[in-house]
Amino acid sequence: MAKVSSYFCGLDHHVNNVSIGADGMFLLFSAYLVFAMQAGFGMLCAGSVRRKNTVDIVLTHIMNAAVGAMSYYLVGFTFAFGRSSNGFIGAHSFAKPDDKAINPNAQPGAWLFQWTFAVAAASITTGSITERTQFTTYILCSTFLTAFVYPVVSHWVWAPSGWLSAANVRNKFLGVGMVDFAGSGVVHMTGAIAGFWGSWIEGPRIGRFDMRGNPKEMRGHSPILEVLGTLLLWFGWYGLTTGSVLATISPSGIANNVLVARTVITTTLAGGAASVTVLLARKSMTGHWMVEDACSGLIAGFTAVTAGCSVIEPWAAVVLGFLAAWVLIGMNRLALKIRYDDPLNAFQRHGGCGLLGIIFVGLLAKKEYLLQTLRTSDNSPYGLLYGGGGRLLAAQVTGAICITAWTSVTMGTLFYALNNVVLLRISEEEEAAGLDVVSHGRVLDEYRDELRLRRLESGSFTIRHFPGPERGTNNDSQRGQSMVEGQTAIES
Amino acid sequence: MAKVSSYFCGLDHHVNNVSIGADGMFLLFSAYLVFAMQAGFGMLCAGSVRRKNTVDIVLTHIMNAAVGAMSYYLVGFTFAFGRSSNGFIGAHSFAKPDDKAINPNAQPGAWLFQWTFAVAAASITTGSITERTQFTTYILCSTFLTAFVYPVVSHWVWAPSGWLSAANVRNKFLGVGMVDFAGSGVVHMTGAIAGFWGSWIEGPRIGRFDMRGNPKEMRGHSPILEVLGTLLLWFGWYGLTTGSVLATISPSGIANNVLVARTVITTTLAGGAASVTVLLARKSMTGHWMVEDACSGLIAGFTAVTAGCSVIEPWAAVVLGFLAAWVLIGMNRLALKIRYDDPLNAFQRHGGCGLLGIIFVGLLAKKEYLLQTLRTSDNSPYGLLYGGGGRLLAAQVTGAICITAWTSVTMGTLFYALNNVVLLRISEEEEAAGLDVVSHGRVLDEYRDELRLRRLESGSFTIRHFPGPERGTNNDSQRGQSMVEGQTAIES
Amino acid sequence: MAKVSSYFCGLDHHVNNVSIGADGMFLLFSAYLVFAMQAGFGMLCAGSVRRKNTVDIVLTHIMNAAVGAMSYYLVGFTFAFGRSSNGFIGAHSFAKPDDKAINPNAQPGAWLFQWTFAVAAASITTGSITERTQFTTYILCSTFLTAFVYPVVSHWVWAPSGWLSAANVRNKFLGVGMVDFAGSGVVHMTGAIAGFWGSWIEGPRIGRFDMRGNPKEMRGHSPILEVLGTLLLWFGWYGLTTGSVLATISPSGIANNVLVARTVITTTLAGGAASVTVLLARKSMTGHWMVEDACSGLIAGFTAVTAGCSVIEPWAAVVLGFLAAWVLIGMNRLALKIRYDDPLNAFQRHGGCGLLGIIFVGLLAKKEYLLQTLRTSDNSPYGLLYGGGGRLLAAQVTGAICITAWTSVTMGTLFYALNNVVLLRISEEEEAAGLDVVSHGRVLDEYRDELRLRRLESGSFTIRHFPGPERGTNNDSQRGQSMVEGQTAIES
Repeated sequence: MAKVSSYFCGLDHHVNNVSIGADGMFLLFSAYLVFAMQAGFGMLCAGSVRRKNTVDIVLTHIMNAAVGAMSYYLVGFTFAFGRSSNGFIGAHSFAKPDDKAINPNAQPGAWLFQWTFAVAAASITTGSITERTQFTTYILCSTFLTAFVYPVVSHWVWAPSGWLSAANVRNKFLGVGMVDFAGSGVVHMTGAIAGFWGSWIEGPRIGRFDMRGNPKEMRGHSPILEVLGTLLLWFGWYGLTTGSVLATISPSGIANNVLVARTVITTTLAGGAASVTVLLARKSMTGHWMVEDACSGLIAGFTAVTAGCSVIEPWAAVVLGFLAAWVLIGMNRLALKIRYDDPLNAFQRHGGCGLLGIIFVGLLAKKEYLLQTLRTSDNSPYGLLYGGGGRLLAAQVTGAICITAWTSVTMGTLFYALNNVVLLRISEEEEAAGLDVVSHGRVLDEYRDELRLRRLESGSFTIRHFPGPERGTNNDSQRGQSMVEGQTAIES
Repeated sequence: MAKVSSYFCGLDHHVNNVSIGADGMFLLFSAYLVFAMQAGFGMLCAGSVRRKNTVDIVLTHIMNAAVGAMSYYLVGFTFAFGRSSNGFIGAHSFAKPDDKAINPNAQPGAWLFQWTFAVAAASITTGSITERTQFTTYILCSTFLTAFVYPVVSHWVWAPSGWLSAANVRNKFLGVGMVDFAGSGVVHMTGAIAGFWGSWIEGPRIGRFDMRGNPKEMRGHSPILEVLGTLLLWFGWYGLTTGSVLATISPSGIANNVLVARTVITTTLAGGAASVTVLLARKSMTGHWMVEDACSGLIAGFTAVTAGCSVIEPWAAVVLGFLAAWVLIGMNRLALKIRYDDPLNAFQRHGGCGLLGIIFVGLLAKKEYLLQTLRTSDNSPYGLLYGGGGRLLAAQVTGAICITAWTSVTMGTLFYALNNVVLLRISEEEEAAGLDVVSHGRVLDEYRDELRLRRLESGSFTIRHFPGPERGTNNDSQRGQSMVEGQTAIES
Repeated sequence: MAKVSSYFCGLDHHVNNVSIGADGMFLLFSAYLVFAMQAGFGMLCAGSVRRKNTVDIVLTHIMNAAVGAMSYYLVGFTFAFGRSSNGFIGAHSFAKPDDKAINPNAQPGAWLFQWTFAVAAASITTGSITERTQFTTYILCSTFLTAFVYPVVSHWVWAPSGWLSAANVRNKFLGVGMVDFAGSGVVHMTGAIAGFWGSWIEGPRIGRFDMRGNPKEMRGHSPILEVLGTLLLWFGWYGLTTGSVLATISPSGIANNVLVARTVITTTLAGGAASVTVLLARKSMTGHWMVEDACSGLIAGFTAVTAGCSVIEPWAAVVLGFLAAWVLIGMNRLALKIRYDDPLNAFQRHGGCGLLGIIFVGLLAKKEYLLQTLRTSDNSPYGLLYGGGGRLLAAQVTGAICITAWTSVTMGTLFYALNNVVLLRISEEEEAAGLDVVSHGRVLDEYRDELRLRRLESGSFTIRHFPGPERGTNNDSQRGQSMVEGQTAIES
């Protein structure tokens, strides 16, 4: 008997190790997918801006991640998930995100997973303020967001001690907490509202609205890059939503698999429905099947479903995608009316559809699914339209308001202050020339041909000189000679 | 004793949960890789067509997936794998792909995995009919394919009740069923034959063959995009072949690991061998090391090995790659002779090499490997050249014929009917202008420079106007002014 | 009792199977990520060269993998990891990499994982010798590297019988062996030193240094491709470093999770720190925020941390990233002084920072972390600065010297011999025209516009003819007509 017992103990131990290992892998590889979203955001943004600002925007994406790695390591992860007795912010084990790993139950990919979320939020902000923001300022704002503003929000909603958290065991807000499974509010609204204030305070790009306030469209220069970015985002989004199940193994043997099965389906359906809806709706408006609409719609649908992917039914995901499409279209119209210029439509897409997703959970979270998600069998308020009362909806709305307020106060103030000391926006001259030439030392090949064409056409044009990147630097192309000395921008 | 027993029961349960979780993860992450193939197909196609049709083709890829998500959710998955007592088509639980997830033995990534296969089939069809097909028609055909035509084929070959299925427990066709491990026939031939009929009925692109029937090559505009797409396909193909092992854990503890080890090796070797062979063979014909050949060869090899990746030996994979290369080259020659124009060579590559792969299994499926694959220890016919008799080969050929017939009847009829009511092909004028300008509201920057060059060169050219995308829309590039009003296409 | 025992046995077996399956999955999916680095290297290189050589360099990347698949299957894997009683090279089971898979403890992704490393080494070499090397010669060298030179190095350092291996149970070199967790030395230095000799023997690209030896910068033609490639490399690098943990399940239930948690963090921090440092340092030198610097810095940091990612503390990873940045900058300066031209700065980045990483382990490997990594509780020398004595450092330096010597003797000799028989470098004429036109049958669209512009500008230019790819071949662009017959290169 004793022998059996000891053998048995070893086996128990082994099973536990396997379980921990498999769960660790699930989160780790999901985090890899979310990281791939950086490549997605980068390519989408690169394709969506004018050619003269592409280098600037992809460099900001790399810096989001590179600077964000250090800031999220030092303080961000702790503000978000450090042990804490208060509902506002985490407080212990700064710069020790792997500390919990010493506890075999902690997940080895936890830091990476959460960091990729923080960086995704910053990438959303990038899109709103691009094409006219000073590079150093941008890095400052992005760091503040990933190090402090975003972590606080994620502490509220996701940390076990967060005041809004549905995982708060002691005291759930309104008896349920805010249900934002993978971050429609935490990630997307936070990033979008930060971006809104930056973009609004800076004002529109030069030429975006004419004297009378009529918009002139400034389409992205490369639909292929937009599509590549969108498909990479789609790929990575599965890591975002499905990875938020956090573990592949459930004590009951059912719940996690069911959650995974549901999230992949709701994610896919919401994105697909929104993409088709935007494409069709805009076709009827513009007469064209515009690939930007399909891409933007996809992301709108994904954004909306991120909050509720584990708690809504598949048919509801289709409905949500449909609604997200119209929210996007409506907010884009509104943006034109109030002369708000957001090169990526990031506020409209991630802010508007993020809010929609948060509210939708309050309306259509199914009781059974919610209990699976919260891993509880207790009674809990659920979706209003399923007869679950208004408390979940109230928690969702409260959460959305608080995220908006917090992000507005912190990031809005920062942008306002920077603008006042003329550190936010680049000069008109620089904007006309393009950030790639002004800040990033590029000579665009196209400029050279443009110069030659103009010379042939008329002879009258202005060449403005900016300091070249290095003495003796020439972009020696296959043409065997360089047309221009130094860095040249063109204004006719 | 009783205490040990109950403890023991709990442990048994735990092990089961871990096992289910790990297996679920295997299929799920494999599905993610297969999804990445959409980005691969998208970029490959974008690079392989002329610049004026790039937006069109990438938009069709997004719509394949977006519309396909809804149709495959509603009916496709059920037609393929819904419970059924007939060998032809699945019939129960429409719009409930996660239904089985309630059964803890069902895999949470099953729907996603199968959906990505359906979408891959549609993407193959896209390649054949691109550059000259009406956009709405395309979406209709793609939806019909993912919702009905492809699911029926996958039911036959892969569902436990399918009449051709090697997994059919009751009544295996010819005592073995068709062995198509990851879809050389199910996915590639189905997609390719559908594309063949579309392309054949539409006829070649304008200018592809001159008056005398001599071909004029129309090379893709971006070899870099072709390579990016091919490498993403290579990445994703491991999800396709190795993911088809479906589970990482085997009761015996050996079989699945052995299958995984073999499929990654045979996949890699067949692709590599085919790529090198096509590159060398074409070098001797053209005098050039053409990157399109290396890419096309890779895909040909992967396509061929997809059916037999788990049942052939590694040396046979190299032989198969070599043969696939020559099948591709031969079919490309044949296509020129019969004046068949397929912008992606998709029929030649996926149809020809898919068929080769199916037949190759009948010749060189090794007994031991086949039994591992079929997870049986029964006697079973195996490869003819290993002395396994002709029954497996007969089953393979029958399968290939039936897939061809079924796809021809369904998709061929559809394309024929659409062509008769002039809904299939775009007009000559539109084809000359390019789909991006005509259907997708793009003004290509290159057009602007082209206009200016022509104006400088001669002064004589025609400008044709298409309706612009929106009132007041201008593609304001870095040049500070727009050269053309509205949408302009050029014909000299 | 007997019944319990047999039941129990079955359970034990089940747990074992699950454990093997999960571990197999970990290595397999990590290998997929490392494979994605091929797409990363391909795009980074494509963006970093001049437009006229892009097709050449991406084709070499495909061939690295395609030819490397066959050579690494036939002999490379055996040279590296085949059973062997000698410390120099593996010797048994050629062409049977899946042989061990029959042993349930072997990992099904092992061959794929090791092959992707070999191919990564070859891709580093590519970068150094690109833009001026004969295509067939390149393939020969790459094959020799993946089939023999690299496998021998990996046998030394990673095989259980390798003379330098920290996993050598019988006789560890200096009592500890060389600690190169994921290959700063094995992969990066090997690839970089091979490339150095090729590049040095060939000499600089024409025009890279003027008569007086002053450098003329030759910047890559596409920063977007560089960024895409870098982000894909970042994505894949997690497979490289974290995947080198090799298994997700540890007998103790702690070690592997801790290793995984640490490697993802040190990898990310070192890359981030290096990227920021290079960007800032170069900004102060050039006045520009150059995206190439951020990308190059990232890769430098990743390269440096690859050796020690599992044995250094996170703060040390930041320090290492900082140092890697300065090593890169310093070596780039040195390269200009000695007129060494490496289009990708691959030798500086992968050689210099690889060496740094190897040495850094000797200085700052923490005892506790090293024991976890070596999976031992024995005493072992550790980092000098932690008081662990100089033996680890001595082993690291010895390893670096031996890798350098071995690679220099083998690859250096090969390049020297090829150069002597005029098989290494292309002719000056070909270099001026560009490899894409000369070897790969491309007509660059840009050439056509260039021709027209020059014709308009002056009328005086030279057109040189190379044989066209095929009779009747025309690159029919959207312009509706072809400007040039055959293949044309331009020299003014």
